[in-house]
Parts: sequence; structure tokens; C-alpha cells
Amino acid sequence: MQELEERILTEGVIRPGNVLKVDGFINHQCDVDLFDRMGAEWARLFAGRPVDKILTIEASGIALASIAALHFGRVPVVFARKSVGKNLDGDLYHAVVHSYTHGVDNNVIVERRLLNPGENVILIDDFLANGAAIRGLLEICDQAKVNVQGIGIAVEKGFQTGGHDLRAMGYDVQSLAIVQEMDADTGTIRFA
Amino acid sequence: MQELEERILTEGVIRPGNVLKVDGFINHQCDVDLFDRMGAEWARLFAGRPVDKILTIEASGIALASIAALHFGRVPVVFARKSVGKNLDGDLYHAVVHSYTHGVDNNVIVERRLLNPGENVILIDDFLANGAAIRGLLEICDQAKVNVQGIGIAVEKGFQTGGHDLRAMGYDVQSLAIVQEMDADTGTIRFA
Repeated sequence: MQELEERILTEGVIRPGNVLKVDGFINHQCDVDLFDRMGAEWARLFAGRPVDKILTIEASGIALASIAALHFGRVPVVFARKSVGKNLDGDLYHAVVHSYTHGVDNNVIVERRLLNPGENVILIDDFLANGAAIRGLLEICDQAKVNVQGIGIAVEKGFQTGGHDLRAMGYDVQSLAIVQEMDADTGTIRFA
Repeated sequence: MQELEERILTEGVIRPGNVLKVDGFINHQCDVDLFDRMGAEWARLFAGRPVDKILTIEASGIALASIAALHFGRVPVVFARKSVGKNLDGDLYHAVVHSYTHGVDNNVIVERRLLNPGENVILIDDFLANGAAIRGLLEICDQAKVNVQGIGIAVEKGFQTGGHDLRAMGYDVQSLAIVQEMDADTGTIRFA
């Protein structure tokens, strides 16, 4: 998606350790007008697929998934939560997701009653690098016996293995921007 | 907002300790179609006020704030983050917010460059009980010298002091549903 690539070029900041900061418009401040066009683009890319729910993971995926859902027949959005609080009782699906950004393992949970066997689900998240978060969501989808109709990603790091691995497993991964190379020293980014 | 009250009556679950679970449609699964009407209602309630940004706090406020922002001239949404990760460097505003739900203190942060002196901000969150989260956001707004034009809440617990205190401080708090009484034993809810 050209508009997204241009925003990454003008506003993205590369940090050592393959960190790409896009928190000025994607995951700390959210450009909802851009998100609306990104949602429309995912709806175009996944056109024809049945969609009962959008599944994402807190916190950065929620704004993208919620606005995208308006383009998928206004289906509900379920966001996986990262810890079990007092008012998340009952039966839970759960998976362990390692956060490379924060250096911790997160217990990711979804209440069982929110995902029902046979439902058609699109996964949406802001970043795909090694794929840890998405694999956690897929583990939950497997437990819930829902059909994963596609995976929508804002920014894929094409030089890490997540996207390759998920596509090799047969998933329809649609990334709106794929960063193929980036260089913290020169500040250059090359898209796929 | 009658539709929201009806949903709380039909789908809300009361737990001991004044916990009202609305995670089937507000804060674990999100009914984006309802959120769209809630956003329109906040826009009506705050009509005439200048709004440059919506400010919320992760995670449950994000979906509400993002869809609401589409009704406030598609202004950006900034969500305060609950911890400092590796790619949130730079100058930060921060406040400490005690979570009564999870029993912990969270360090809540916003990058300085995302809030600029003189900007007009609406705060949005899912719940208002004792007001700890909103007071944390107000502390950040004070540090940033932005103008708080209003506070939009989905569900206020009117039997706790947060709403009263904020209104006494002069803030325009617009709660779409105010629960005045609830009883875990009988499952009854009375709205203000």
C-alpha cells in the first residue's frame, strides 16, 4: 500500500536491533484516517472470504482491527488479553507469546465463549517480524476450532522469518507494507 | 444512551466486589457497530468544542477512542502506554495509575512529541469508577499543557466517586451509561 510505505519513509525511525518505530502514526498515536483506508484495503484483499470475527492482540492491534472491522460487515473484534485480571474469570483459551520488544513471556488469553467452533476469523496486527504474536493467536484459533480466513498485517519485516513461515504453512498473509531491508546507520528503508 | 443501557442489562454480568463484566461487547469482544453509535453520541454531546486529539489508555479504551475519533473530524488518537518498552525511548510524560482490577501500580506514559501545548483533547475510556485512570491521563495533560475539552466514558459507576470528583473539578464528563446501583446477589442493575 503506497500511502503506508510513504508514511513509513517519512515518519518511521530506525533504531539499532532492527527496531522500526512507527509510533507517531500506528502504535502510540493512531492516524485513524489512514487506518480507515488500511481497513478498506484489507477488505479488498480478503474479498469473498466469509468473516464472522476479527481477532487481534492488545494493545497495538486493537485500533487497526476495530476500524478494519467496519469494512468487514461490522463484525465483532475480539482482542486477546495479555494477563488474567480479576474480571476475566471462566474458561479461557491461552497461549504463551514471547515479546522480543519487552523481553518477557506473556500469557495471552481469550474467553472461550467469544470464539466458537466453525467461525471464520481474520487476524489483524500491526507488526509481523518473527511471528510470535500471530502464532500465539493461531494456537488459540486452533484450540477454538475456528477457521482462519486470513492474516492482515500493517508492517511486515520481510527480513525476519514470520511471514515466510506463515505463508509456508498455507496462511493467506496480507501485509500492507513489507520492509525488506533497513539500515539504522543510514536511515534507509527498502520495501519488497 | 438507551441502547448501551439495554446491552448492559441483557449482557452485563455482576460479580462480587462491584465488578461489572461487559467483556462480551465492550472490553474483550468489541461491538464496533455499537461503538460507532457511541462515537456519534459523544460527538453530539461535545459538539462545538474544538478537538485536536483523542487521548485514551491501553487497552480497553483504544477501540472506543479509535472509532469515536472518526466522528471527531478523524483526529489522531493517542493511547497512553502502561510500561516502557525498548522502542519507547525519548522524552516521556508519565503518571502512576493504580489498577484496582489487577491490584498493581502501572507507570503510564505518553511520548512528549505526541501532545503539544495548547492542543484541545477529549479523553475517552471504557469505565469510570474511582477515576484513577482518568486522573493519570489528566496528570499527563497537565504536564503537556493541553486543554481538556471533555471526558467521554462508556460506563460510569455512579456509586463510586470518580465521576462526582471530576465534575466537581470542573470537567465536562459525559458518561453514556451511569450505573447507580448493582447487586451481585440478585443480578439487578439500576441506572441513574
